[in-house]
Order: sequence, then C-alpha cells, then structure tokens
Amino acid sequence: MSKELQLQASNPMMGVIDPREARMVIRRGEYAGHTANVAPDYVQCNLCILPRDDALEFSAFCQSNPKPCPVVGMGAPGDPALQGLGDIDIRTDVPCYRVFRNGELVDEPIDILDLWNSDLVAFVLGCSFSFEAPLLDEGIALQHVEHDTVVPMYRTSIACTPAGKFVCDMVVSMRPLSPADAIRAVQITSRFPGVHGAPVHIGLPEQIGIEDIMKPDFGDPPVMDEGQLPVFWACGVTPQVAVEQAKPSLCITHKPGSMLITDKKNIELAAF
Amino acid sequence: MSKELQLQASNPMMGVIDPREARMVIRRGEYAGHTANVAPDYVQCNLCILPRDDALEFSAFCQSNPKPCPVVGMGAPGDPALQGLGDIDIRTDVPCYRVFRNGELVDEPIDILDLWNSDLVAFVLGCSFSFEAPLLDEGIALQHVEHDTVVPMYRTSIACTPAGKFVCDMVVSMRPLSPADAIRAVQITSRFPGVHGAPVHIGLPEQIGIEDIMKPDFGDPPVMDEGQLPVFWACGVTPQVAVEQAKPSLCITHKPGSMLITDKKNIELAAF
Repeated sequence: MSKELQLQASNPMMGVIDPREARMVIRRGEYAGHTANVAPDYVQCNLCILPRDDALEFSAFCQSNPKPCPVVGMGAPGDPALQGLGDIDIRTDVPCYRVFRNGELVDEPIDILDLWNSDLVAFVLGCSFSFEAPLLDEGIALQHVEHDTVVPMYRTSIACTPAGKFVCDMVVSMRPLSPADAIRAVQITSRFPGVHGAPVHIGLPEQIGIEDIMKPDFGDPPVMDEGQLPVFWACGVTPQVAVEQAKPSLCITHKPGSMLITDKKNIELAAF
Repeated sequence: MSKELQLQASNPMMGVIDPREARMVIRRGEYAGHTANVAPDYVQCNLCILPRDDALEFSAFCQSNPKPCPVVGMGAPGDPALQGLGDIDIRTDVPCYRVFRNGELVDEPIDILDLWNSDLVAFVLGCSFSFEAPLLDEGIALQHVEHDTVVPMYRTSIACTPAGKFVCDMVVSMRPLSPADAIRAVQITSRFPGVHGAPVHIGLPEQIGIEDIMKPDFGDPPVMDEGQLPVFWACGVTPQVAVEQAKPSLCITHKPGSMLITDKKNIELAAF
C-alpha cells in the first residue's frame, strides 16, 4: 500500500473540529489529503510562497486587487510563522504542497522544510468557503453544494490592476440565485470584504466577457433553474493565473483542496 | 519674499474641488502647503516610501495590522505610478515631502525626482478624514472639528502584530461622543474598513493603557462634555511610529498636512 493510500485509510481527520489538532496531525506528516469539512468553523486559506523580489510585486498586485486577492496573512521575509492566525509553521502545516519552477510543476511534497530559506515570503489568501458558510447558514441554497460539484469559474474581460510582472484578467466564480436570494447574498457577502466581499456582477455575463455560462473555464458546469440569475464573485483562482503567467523562478502553493487551516473563525472575518 | 511665502500668497488651491486640477498645480511645483479642504470629496492619503527590503517587511506589517495601517495603494517596486488612484506621479504630486535617513529628518523637498530610483516602493495609506466626512454628513458633531483643533491621539498598550523590524504598539485617535452617537458612529465607520473601520475601544481608556485622557501623546487635549464617552479609532500615526523605531536607511513621507490627493471619492471607500 502506497504512503498516500495508508494516509487515506487511517483518515486521522475524520470529525476533527479543532484547527490546532488538525494542524498537528498535518505537521507530523500523518495526513496529505484534502481539508474539506475539517475544522469547518475556521478560515482555510490558499497559499502562495514567492522569492523576495517577486513577493514585493505580488504584494502590490494583491493590494491593488483586493476582491480577487484577499490577503488574510503575509509573513515577514524568511519567517515561516503567520502572526495572528495561530501557531503556524508554513513549512509543514499544509497537507500537500505544489512546487513550481519557472511556471512548471516540479514536485508535490508534504512539507517544504528543505526548500524554505530566508529569501521566501508566504502569502495566505482567503477563499469563498468563508462566505459560503454564512450564506448556507441563512438558508440560501448553493447549487454546487447541493449537487456536490465544483463551483463554476470563468475567465472574464475585467482587467485586474497590474503590478510589475503580475498582469491578468479577473477570474470569477458563479452561483445561480433567485433575485431575492441574490439581493440577500449581496448583503451577507458585503460583510466579508476579506474573503472576496460583495459580487462583482449580476445577471448579464456577456458584459464581463463570458460567452457561454454553461461552459466554465474551471470547475463544473452549473445547473441553472428557471427564474435564477447568475451571480458572480471575484475568485481566488485569479492570483493563481497571475502567478502562472508571471512564471517566477520559484513558487510554492498548496495542492488544490489541501489548504492551510487557521485558528481564525470564519465569523471573525465579518467586517460588522 | 521667500518661495514659500510666494506660494502661500498666490494660494492656487483656493476653492479647488477637482483632484486632477489640484495635482497638476502641485506637480508643477506651484503649491507646497497643506491640503485641508482641497478637493474635499476625494480620498487624501499619507505617504510612506521605502527601499525594497524594508518595503516587503512594511507590507507584511500593514497586512497584519489593517486597522491602523489601511493601505489604499501600493506601487510596484520602482514604479512612481499608483494604478487605480488616478494619474499619479508619486515623485511630484505631494505638495511637500520629508526625507529621513536612518530615522533622522534630513530634508523637506517639494519633489523627489532626484531621490527616486528602481529600489523604491510607495505606500499610500488612508486617513480618518475619509470617515469623518460621513460622520459629519450624518449630523455627528466632532469636538476637534468644532474647536478647530487637532484630534487627540494616544499611545496604547495594544500590541500590533510585528513583522520583521516593524514592531510597535497601536496609536489611537479619540472622539468624545454621546452614547447614541457612539453607537451610530460604530455603524457608520464599519462601512469604511479601508480607512481604520470601526472603533477599537469605547469608554474605558485605562483598559488600553491610557492613563490620562486629557494628556494625549499627539494632537490637542480633548474637550469632553458631560455624558460623553471617549471613542477610540486605530490611528495612522501607528505606522509612522513603527517606521521611526525601525530607522530604515531611507524613508520618504509627506509633510504632515500636505497629503496626496487621489481621484478616488471618499464614498467609494464604503464597503457597502
């Protein structure tokens, strides 16, 4: 049995609700799987680690495009800790990493202790999971959750503000909602500016360069019911596309689905 | 007559409400004074320019302490433009600069064309002016505005999250308000997370290390009326203190009161 299968078989994450407990299992190298439903009340983050010079431009890019690139935490150069998000060692606390060199995927290690050095800077970015929880809590049904599919995501014609080598158009995620739910969803997600915030568009996808709503660029095609509007939020795939196109000499991310679990509660991200 | 007096005598900013017009006058070197009431509907920003390595740590510091350090714009390294805030050249568009070397004030030039280089990064930070306008619009009287004094500011015992060499306690500004106005002010300023957001404390200054409310560390002593509570907001002096203590080899700021005027309207900073 491969190490990966052994890890899955032991399933040490079943029922874990405490983020510290989850991270300790991951830190010990005992779990390399996805983090869906692990410590569900707590903020999970996308990871992007870059060398110092690229990090400075990336920081300017995120700063200039806060809706698609909501930075929840940023480490000081060379510091593997993320103050304020818990007792985190970014070198070990993500279940599975991806290592890119000049834009090419070269490895998927379960820690990056060998790769870490004083030139590296860690960014962790919020994801839509943190605003989907309060939507669901308020009784707003989300079709991709009900159908257990991946939310549909689209490249748009909305230009992000460029910063140095980071230049791209915004990627959006889409959730079909009734007009009443769409209005309520604008209100609810406005409370979460740190995890994409309010929608960037409602109802007329052709205005933002989306030709066929049934053909997303990422994720699964949506199931649109009669009387629903497509509602679009800025998506965390945007900074990934920006990094892909910039091809930095080194970039370390999480493996999709295997995210950093922080000690911050989703509800703490509410601005009010 | 000195150049400065000439500049004051000509007073080219009298009645200017368009931010582009104001910046053109400043860019031509024709105005080196303060920017109070110039283009009053538009966001004015504090400036902090740092060399690349310090900039990366400062970016992490601001990212980790968004309430006292609300970054409204950040330039890519070496880029004097600030995308998204208007046609800005950060080397010329602030009326008067301050140049610090190793923490010592060494010059107050009206442009920094000679100093700018590819190693420098510009940060512009929001200020409380952007949230005071909506408070005043909603009929909430502010004592320092009524008395034409400088808002009182205090060093507190609230530790900022450190990042590299940037380590300090939070500085807060205080506005005395009736309990009803304090509640309304929480609601209104919650709409402006990009310019300090909701208060950090109400009513019990000793809990945050303030011994005597009548003895502020910066600004003028307050006038407290019977039945008013002291309401405290995170203050943009905090990053200035952090930079002062870090003593970077070079730091360029605006001269207090002489701020960068952007094309962004104050109301555009409202999160909802």
